[in-house]
Amino acid sequence: MVNPELSQGATTPVAVLRALHHGRAAGDPLILPGPWDAASARVFEEAGFPALATPSAGVAASLGYEDGRTPADEMFAAVARIVRSVSVPVSADIEAGYGLAPKELVERLLETGAVGCNLEDSGTGAVAAPTGSGGRGQQERVLKDAQQQAEWLAEVRAAAGDRVVLNARIDAFLVQGVADPVGEAIERARLYVAAGADCVYPIGAPAEALPRLRAGIEGPINVGAPPGGPTLKEWGELGATRITFGPGLQRRAAAALREIAATLA
Amino acid sequence: MVNPELSQGATTPVAVLRALHHGRAAGDPLILPGPWDAASARVFEEAGFPALATPSAGVAASLGYEDGRTPADEMFAAVARIVRSVSVPVSADIEAGYGLAPKELVERLLETGAVGCNLEDSGTGAVAAPTGSGGRGQQERVLKDAQQQAEWLAEVRAAAGDRVVLNARIDAFLVQGVADPVGEAIERARLYVAAGADCVYPIGAPAEALPRLRAGIEGPINVGAPPGGPTLKEWGELGATRITFGPGLQRRAAAALREIAATLA
Repeated sequence: MVNPELSQGATTPVAVLRALHHGRAAGDPLILPGPWDAASARVFEEAGFPALATPSAGVAASLGYEDGRTPADEMFAAVARIVRSVSVPVSADIEAGYGLAPKELVERLLETGAVGCNLEDSGTGAVAAPTGSGGRGQQERVLKDAQQQAEWLAEVRAAAGDRVVLNARIDAFLVQGVADPVGEAIERARLYVAAGADCVYPIGAPAEALPRLRAGIEGPINVGAPPGGPTLKEWGELGATRITFGPGLQRRAAAALREIAATLA
Repeated sequence: MVNPELSQGATTPVAVLRALHHGRAAGDPLILPGPWDAASARVFEEAGFPALATPSAGVAASLGYEDGRTPADEMFAAVARIVRSVSVPVSADIEAGYGLAPKELVERLLETGAVGCNLEDSGTGAVAAPTGSGGRGQQERVLKDAQQQAEWLAEVRAAAGDRVVLNARIDAFLVQGVADPVGEAIERARLYVAAGADCVYPIGAPAEALPRLRAGIEGPINVGAPPGGPTLKEWGELGATRITFGPGLQRRAAAALREIAATLA
C-alpha cells in the first residue's frame, strides 16, 4: 500500500516512487525489499511494501551467475519479469550500466517497466599479479573518476527526463584504500546530485558515518542495512531516507530453503 | 552425492539418473527436490541430493506465470539455467510438451542439458459454459486418450533413444470423474511402460492406493508427497520408487520469505 500522504497525489509509478523519497519523518525510512524473481516480488508486494528495488547480486544468484557477471539481456529480462508480476513501482539495480550508451541504457531500462535504477561508480580493474600468486592477475574494485561519473549520470538523466528515479551509488566505503570515505562520499554526492541523481547510495557506510553523511549530503540517502546492525527505524533516525538490503533477503531465503532441504534429506 | 552402489558404475548424467531408479530398498526411495531457479538448485545439490527434478508450477511461479501458461522458450531457458548451475543430473517437467513434435521436443530438452523429463497425459479442454455462469466458458482438465498418449510417448522415446529418462505422468487421480483411478492408472502405466517410459507418475495418488498401484505396475513409480502425509520412508515402503514435491518446496520457500518480509515491515 502506498501511503497517500507520502505519494503526494502522484499517479504514475515513477512519480509514486519519487514521492516516496520525500517528506518522510526521521524514524520512518522508505524500506525497499529486493526481489530476485516474480515469486519473491509478489511476496514483498503482498507484505505491503510500496515499492521494490532489485539487487543485482540476488538476481545473479537466481539466474546462476556470479554477481557482476550477469549478461545485460538476462538482467533486463529478469527485471521485466519482476515488474510484470507486481503493481508497485520497481527500481532495478543495473550495476554500472553494462557499457551501454546512456540513451540505450535508459531505453532498455524503461522497456522492462522499471521506473528507477541504481548505477554504481566503481568497476573492476586488472592489477598486477602479486608475487607468489602463480602469475594469475586479480580483479580489484576501483572508484571511477568522480567528475566523469557525474557527467555520465547527467547524460543518463538527460536521456531519462523525469521517467527514472536515479539512485547513484557511491562506492567509497566498498573499495579499498580510500583515506576518508565519508569525505569522498560527500564530495561525490554533491557532484551526482548536481548531475540529476534523485538519491545517493553510499553502500557499506557504517552507522557511525551516517550523521556526517546526512549533514553533508543534500537530498535522499539510501543505506544498505546489514543483518545485526541498527534497526530500520534507527537507520532512519541516523539519517537514512531509503533502506535496501542488497542480496541479503535472497540469502536469508536460501538459508531458509537449506533448512527445508535438510528436513527432506 | 550419488550413491555409488545405486548408480551402478554409471558415468553419464542420464545413466546416473536412470540407475538411481533401480535396485533401491523399499524404505529408501529416490528423493528428487524440485528447484525453480539456479539458487534453489544449488541449495538442493549442496544438501546432498543425487539428482533434481524441476516442477513446472514452481518454475512458473518464479517466472511470474500461472502454472500451465509458461511459454516453452521461457521454460526451456529456466531449465537450462538450473542445469548449468549444478553438477547432478536434472529432470525437467515439460508439461504436455508445448505442442512440439517429438523430435523437436527432445532436441529442445537436450539443449537445456536436462537428461530426464515429465510428460503429462491430460490437458485442458473448453467445456460449455454452465447456466448462470454469465456465459464464460471454463477450462477443465481432461485425460488424453491413453492409446494416443502411449503412441506419442513411443515417438518421444524413439527420438530420444536412451538419452532421456522418461517419467510418464498419469493424471487419473487429478482429473474429475474417473470412476476407478487406480485401475485407470494401472492400465495407462502398462501402455506407457510398453511405449518406453522409464518411470510412471500417478500424480495425486493417495497413500491407500499405493499397494494396488505397486502390485499392478511394472517398474519405477513416482509419487508426489504432499505435506502432512506419510513420511518419505513410509511412501517408499508403500511402493514409491521416486518421490517429488511438485511446487511444494517453492511454496514452502515463499512461506519462509513471507515470514522474513514480515520482520521488515
